[in-house]
Amino acid sequence: MSASYRERYRGRRVLITGGLGFIGSSLAHHLVALGADVLLVDSLIPDYGGNVFNIDGIADRVHVNIADIRQQSTMNHLVRQRDVIFNLAGQVSHIDSIRDPYADLEINCRGQLTILEACRYNNPTVKVVFAGTRQVYGRPDSLPVSESHLVRPTDVNGINKAAGEYYHLVYNNVFHVRACSLRLTNVYGPRQLIRHNRQGFIGWFLRQAVEDGTIEIYGDGSQLRDFVYVDDAADAFLRAGEDEACNGEVFNIGGDEPISHRDLTTLLVEVAGAGRVRYIDWPADRKAIDVGDFYADSSKFRRLTGWAPSVTLREGLSRTVSYYRRHFDRYVDGAGRSAETV
Amino acid sequence: MSASYRERYRGRRVLITGGLGFIGSSLAHHLVALGADVLLVDSLIPDYGGNVFNIDGIADRVHVNIADIRQQSTMNHLVRQRDVIFNLAGQVSHIDSIRDPYADLEINCRGQLTILEACRYNNPTVKVVFAGTRQVYGRPDSLPVSESHLVRPTDVNGINKAAGEYYHLVYNNVFHVRACSLRLTNVYGPRQLIRHNRQGFIGWFLRQAVEDGTIEIYGDGSQLRDFVYVDDAADAFLRAGEDEACNGEVFNIGGDEPISHRDLTTLLVEVAGAGRVRYIDWPADRKAIDVGDFYADSSKFRRLTGWAPSVTLREGLSRTVSYYRRHFDRYVDGAGRSAETV
Repeated sequence: MSASYRERYRGRRVLITGGLGFIGSSLAHHLVALGADVLLVDSLIPDYGGNVFNIDGIADRVHVNIADIRQQSTMNHLVRQRDVIFNLAGQVSHIDSIRDPYADLEINCRGQLTILEACRYNNPTVKVVFAGTRQVYGRPDSLPVSESHLVRPTDVNGINKAAGEYYHLVYNNVFHVRACSLRLTNVYGPRQLIRHNRQGFIGWFLRQAVEDGTIEIYGDGSQLRDFVYVDDAADAFLRAGEDEACNGEVFNIGGDEPISHRDLTTLLVEVAGAGRVRYIDWPADRKAIDVGDFYADSSKFRRLTGWAPSVTLREGLSRTVSYYRRHFDRYVDGAGRSAETV
Repeated sequence: MSASYRERYRGRRVLITGGLGFIGSSLAHHLVALGADVLLVDSLIPDYGGNVFNIDGIADRVHVNIADIRQQSTMNHLVRQRDVIFNLAGQVSHIDSIRDPYADLEINCRGQLTILEACRYNNPTVKVVFAGTRQVYGRPDSLPVSESHLVRPTDVNGINKAAGEYYHLVYNNVFHVRACSLRLTNVYGPRQLIRHNRQGFIGWFLRQAVEDGTIEIYGDGSQLRDFVYVDDAADAFLRAGEDEACNGEVFNIGGDEPISHRDLTTLLVEVAGAGRVRYIDWPADRKAIDVGDFYADSSKFRRLTGWAPSVTLREGLSRTVSYYRRHFDRYVDGAGRSAETV
C-alpha cells in the first residue's frame, strides 16, 4: 500500500519546472525509475541552480525544454496534456531578493501566475504541486512551527514565495486547478548548487568540507534548523502529486530532529574527515533577514500521506560528500559555468 | 492631547499616492485644512477610482502630479524631501484581479516595490503608511478578526495586497524605511467610485439608493460586515503617520458594529428615502471569492493611538447620499469619464 502512489506514476505525463535544478532533477531521477513520461523545463539562469549535469544518467530518458516560465505562450504549450506538474522553478536566494527585488518578483510571482494561467486555460484538470518554503513564516513565535503559524516573511524572497503559494491555493479554489504547496525547510543532498553561498548555508558548508576548507558560522552556532535529505523531499512531492486530499492545502516538509549549526558542522566535518569550523560575526545584511531558531512540525503531511524522512542526517551528509567528491568539477568553476550557458 | 497629532501636520511635506482616489483625496482635504504641504500622485487609470473632481475646493492648495507609481525614476524624484507618504495607490477590484491577474500584480506588487525602492535610495528617513485591506484574511476562522488571524486571501487581489503590505514591513525592518499598514475593512463615504460595481458593494448600493433604483443583494443578506466612514479612515492615517509606535506593525481599521447586508440596505433606503432591495442568487464568479461574514477587531490600533470611529453609520450614509445627490454627474457617465482622461 505504501508503494502504490509510486506505482501510479508509471506512464504518467509529468512536467517539472526548474527541472534541471537541485530538487527538480532529483525528482526526475525518481520518476524515470518509476516509468513516468518526464518533461523538464528550465531556463538555466546563471547562479540559480540549474545544471545539465544533474540529469547525467537519465538524459536520454527525459525530455528537456529550455524555457523561461515567465513566457506565457511557451507555458501554454508545455502544460498541455500533462497529468502532474511539479512546480519547482524559482529564485531562491534571500540575499539576492534584497539586492534586486524586481527579478525575484518576476520569477516568484509573475512566473507562477504564468504557469497557473497556462493551466487555467489549457489544462484545467492537471494537478500542481508547488515548492513552497519555510521562509514564509519568518521569525517564529513558537517552535516547532506548524501550518497554523502566521505568515510573516523577513525578506522579499519570502514574500514573493508566499504570494506564489497563495496563487496556487486560489487557483485551486476558484478555477479548480488542483494544487497544493509543500513548505520545505532545509533540503540538502547531491545536485545542489554549491558554487556560491547565496542560496542558503548547507550547500556552502558541504562544499567547504569537501574542499577541506573553513566553514564559517555566523554567531555562536546555537541556531537550530531541521534538514531534509533530497530523496525524502522528492518522496513528499510524489505523494502529494497522487493524493487528492492534499488539494488546496499547505504542508510543512521538515526533518526529524532539529540540530544546531554547531552540531551540524561537527557532524559534517566528522563524516567528511575534512574541513574545520570558524565562528564569525554576523554580516549586517544577513543578520537583518535572519529568523533565529527554526524547525517545522510536519505532522500534518505525515498523518495525511504516511510520509516520513528515511535518511538520517549522518547518512545523508555521507552520501552528499561522496557525490561532490566524485563530481566536484561539475558544480564548481569551469564545468559548472559551461552548464549554465547551454 | 488628542489633537496634537493633527497639529503636527502643519507645514509637513506629505505625498499621497492614489491622491485623486476616494480615500487619498479625502485625506488631502484634511491635510490642507491642517496646513500641510500636499503632493498628490495619481495615474487616473480608467475605472480605478481617481477623479479630479475629488479635489474640488482644494485644487489650488495641493500639488497634483499625474504619474504611474510603477515608473521608477518618477517615484525616485517624487518621494524626495517628503516627510510622510500615505500610500493608497492600488488596483482594488477583486473581480478584475481574477480576470487579469497581471495588471493587479504590476500595480499592487511591482508598484509598491517601486515606491519602497525609491524611498530606500532617495529618502530613507520618510515615514510610509500603507493602505492594506481586510481581504488578506480571506474567509475568517473566527470573529471578530484580529491581526493574529492567518493571512489566507481568497483571490489574486488579496494575495498581491498582502505582498505589498509585507514589502512595507520588510523595508521597515531591513532598510529602516519606517512603515506600517492599516488593514481597512469597508470604507464608504463621499468621493468613492460609484460608476461600476467591481470595487466592492457599498458604493454601488449607495448609487442605487441615490438613483432610486434596485439594490441587488447576493444570497439572503445575512452576511455581516463592518463599515468605516471615510473621515474616520482618514483620521486613522493621520494618527499612524505621526506615531512612531506604529512602525513595522499592521493594524485593523474597522467599524464599531457589524451589520448584515439586509440591515444595512434597510437603513440606507430609509436614510435616502429612495431605492429598494432585491435578493438574487450569487453569481458564480463572485461566490468563488466571497469570504462570508467578516468584521474586524480594531482594538490594537485603538489602544495604541486613541483612534475611534466618530461617525455613525446612519450619519455617514446620510452625508454620503447628500454628497452624491449634489455631485452625481461628477461620478457617473460624462463627467466621470472626462475626469479619467485628463
